[in-house]
Amino acid sequence: MAEKIRAAEIICVGTELLLGDIVNTNAAYISGKLAKLGIPVYRETSVGDNPERLKAAIADAYSRVDTVIFCGGLGPTDDDLTKETVSEYFGLGLELNAEAEERIVKFFETVCRHMTVNNIKQAMIPSGATVFQNDFGTAPGIGIERTVGGEIKQAVLLPGPPSELHPLWESKVEPYLAERSNGIIVSHNIHLIGIGESAVGEMMKERMKSDNPTVAPYCNEGECRLRVSAFAPDYAKADEMSRAVVDEIKSTELGDYIYGIDCENGEKALVAELRAEKLTLAVAESCTGGLLAKRITDVPGCSDVFLGGFVTYCNDAKMKLLGVSADTLDKFDAVSAETAAEMAAGARRALGADMGLSTTGIAGPGGGTAEKPVGTVFVAVSYKDKVYVRRLRISPTKTREQIRSIAATSLFGLSMAVLGKLRASLQDLTVFNM
Amino acid sequence: MAEKIRAAEIICVGTELLLGDIVNTNAAYISGKLAKLGIPVYRETSVGDNPERLKAAIADAYSRVDTVIFCGGLGPTDDDLTKETVSEYFGLGLELNAEAEERIVKFFETVCRHMTVNNIKQAMIPSGATVFQNDFGTAPGIGIERTVGGEIKQAVLLPGPPSELHPLWESKVEPYLAERSNGIIVSHNIHLIGIGESAVGEMMKERMKSDNPTVAPYCNEGECRLRVSAFAPDYAKADEMSRAVVDEIKSTELGDYIYGIDCENGEKALVAELRAEKLTLAVAESCTGGLLAKRITDVPGCSDVFLGGFVTYCNDAKMKLLGVSADTLDKFDAVSAETAAEMAAGARRALGADMGLSTTGIAGPGGGTAEKPVGTVFVAVSYKDKVYVRRLRISPTKTREQIRSIAATSLFGLSMAVLGKLRASLQDLTVFNM
Repeated sequence: MAEKIRAAEIICVGTELLLGDIVNTNAAYISGKLAKLGIPVYRETSVGDNPERLKAAIADAYSRVDTVIFCGGLGPTDDDLTKETVSEYFGLGLELNAEAEERIVKFFETVCRHMTVNNIKQAMIPSGATVFQNDFGTAPGIGIERTVGGEIKQAVLLPGPPSELHPLWESKVEPYLAERSNGIIVSHNIHLIGIGESAVGEMMKERMKSDNPTVAPYCNEGECRLRVSAFAPDYAKADEMSRAVVDEIKSTELGDYIYGIDCENGEKALVAELRAEKLTLAVAESCTGGLLAKRITDVPGCSDVFLGGFVTYCNDAKMKLLGVSADTLDKFDAVSAETAAEMAAGARRALGADMGLSTTGIAGPGGGTAEKPVGTVFVAVSYKDKVYVRRLRISPTKTREQIRSIAATSLFGLSMAVLGKLRASLQDLTVFNM
Repeated sequence: MAEKIRAAEIICVGTELLLGDIVNTNAAYISGKLAKLGIPVYRETSVGDNPERLKAAIADAYSRVDTVIFCGGLGPTDDDLTKETVSEYFGLGLELNAEAEERIVKFFETVCRHMTVNNIKQAMIPSGATVFQNDFGTAPGIGIERTVGGEIKQAVLLPGPPSELHPLWESKVEPYLAERSNGIIVSHNIHLIGIGESAVGEMMKERMKSDNPTVAPYCNEGECRLRVSAFAPDYAKADEMSRAVVDEIKSTELGDYIYGIDCENGEKALVAELRAEKLTLAVAESCTGGLLAKRITDVPGCSDVFLGGFVTYCNDAKMKLLGVSADTLDKFDAVSAETAAEMAAGARRALGADMGLSTTGIAGPGGGTAEKPVGTVFVAVSYKDKVYVRRLRISPTKTREQIRSIAATSLFGLSMAVLGKLRASLQDLTVFNM
């Protein structure tokens, strides 16, 4: 039987990480996967392709935990040294793995590329190690479990490219580590719109002191998420514990701001809700400039629901494509509740949809006035015989990207409220009958 | 005079990092900025909101380097402990900073949100520290320079949200650290479309061996960038050295694939070119679903050029809004050169633009066939009396997000080629007269 893991660290290897050339998405990926297995992560360290510094980082990590997950540095070039350095720590020699060699030769045949001698280096495996054959690249993953200094230590070595790491993890590493973990963490996420981080923190102050289940808020660009995580020996128990806390939070005043549980984001929640209700959607965008449609079409299978959209950046397009009246633009301006309402209704009409959404505002950096500073955005939902418009006052210190993102997120929240799925958000609206 | 920095490490603080809830873009950002200042980074460490482990990580880092950049954990909640723990290492007490306090009060007034008592915690500063006031949030940055154990140690503490970190770094932290560094790296970026990483690597093989200036390729989602970096004691010298190499590369055969120098991305290059030529643009999107318009409208001031766009996800919308003929959809399918051509021409006509762009394809995960697998995308440019269509064969192993992104990027490249700004990319096209 495999030895249980107490705690892990992650070491990512690659000078490119320390030069800021690439963003380390692997650390987040591996952390998230270990969290799911209930394996606590104490530290994540990135080091360069420098054998002395890597050696020191390995010894440091094993002084704190029994298991280290390594990522990167398994490539064919001379500066790829992870395998060699970890083997040295465990006192293991390297042996040619016949299957890995054969796979490398085949891989180069398939992609019609010339194989260089140093590629065979990737088939060398520490003696006695578990090999995770790689179906998406040339470097296999490696698992080591061995006594060092009287204690059992474990190592998992993985290739750096996410397109290799992810399938390798899911098919081979996860079952390997599941056998070695003491339980599982089950998390449920409560999604909120219309409330800020400090207010959430204040309301959840007492709850956040609990160790198991834990409650943690994550707020970003117009929405908040409360993650409730419970650790237990098996899935059913952990799930029950975290669900109980979710239900309890739903019954507090925070419940008014909840638009979904475990729905990932507003666009997914909205697409799912529209699909369930067999409703179709059209959008018209000014300041979000395509982002709204992009986020809706990020949801696979959205085509059941989403008929199409308009990006009407200039007034001419608003009139021509959406039928916004010249009068409205003249009297109220393009950035107004009235224009937003006519845009939403116009998009809905043009595509024959059940619901129409629109945005019009000032995303900056230029274009603000005293009355309508940068960050002023009107978002509208046309549904049945009404159009619901909200004026957003996003902080002008936010970037253009953020203002657009917050506007889209808020509009998803408003749409859920109009569909009766969010209690708190039907206040402070201008409602037009049209 | 400020003490010079020998080497630095980065410590990012936040349990969310170790749970895999967010990708640590800050580590890459700070690493890249330190590289520019010629400050070597030995390690990057992420730790949770746990005071004991943070304390250990601080001591570890200062055992190897004289300077640590901290990021995150400056928030208002009780688990934000970076400032307290670093102050303890330096033996410093915390004092209320009046200007920071005033800024926090004002910030909450501007966004019309309720300020909670714990927000004032963010105005507490280690005594004698340099304060970097934060114009984009409530937690100021902090610089500490002080003797610990007989050696001068430096610390810079920064807020975690990138929207606060980036402007704070550029306006205040960079000059502060520049005074403490021995030189500067100036980089220029050469932007290429239509050529792969290995071909670029092969052509630049000899060049890439140089230590100063360095030449490094970065390829990602349909485009390539060659970064030329020179290190010198001052800006003027480093700039001159790197520009000389850029000019030399322009004169090689790689010059055919260059669409811009230091232009950041394809959308910026295209908007700038259209503006210079006084041309207007309209787009029609199927598989990119708004991303194309979103990326164009990411460019501030794009409204001079961009008239608007259509997201025509269903065939009905393609016919109704863009005038794509039922015959074409029937005979050639929605994913075809013919449909792409009619979409681009239709968007251009509907908005009276000088140039029309379109995308239609299979972004996945579902929807692929043997003849048109996932990753098949047709991109089209309608300009003057012609429509130029390219069939992209993006690897089906890419994600939906990546396929959409590559399609948009390739289309920007094709547009630049049609405008005569990219020598190599007018091959392998289907050209329609319409």
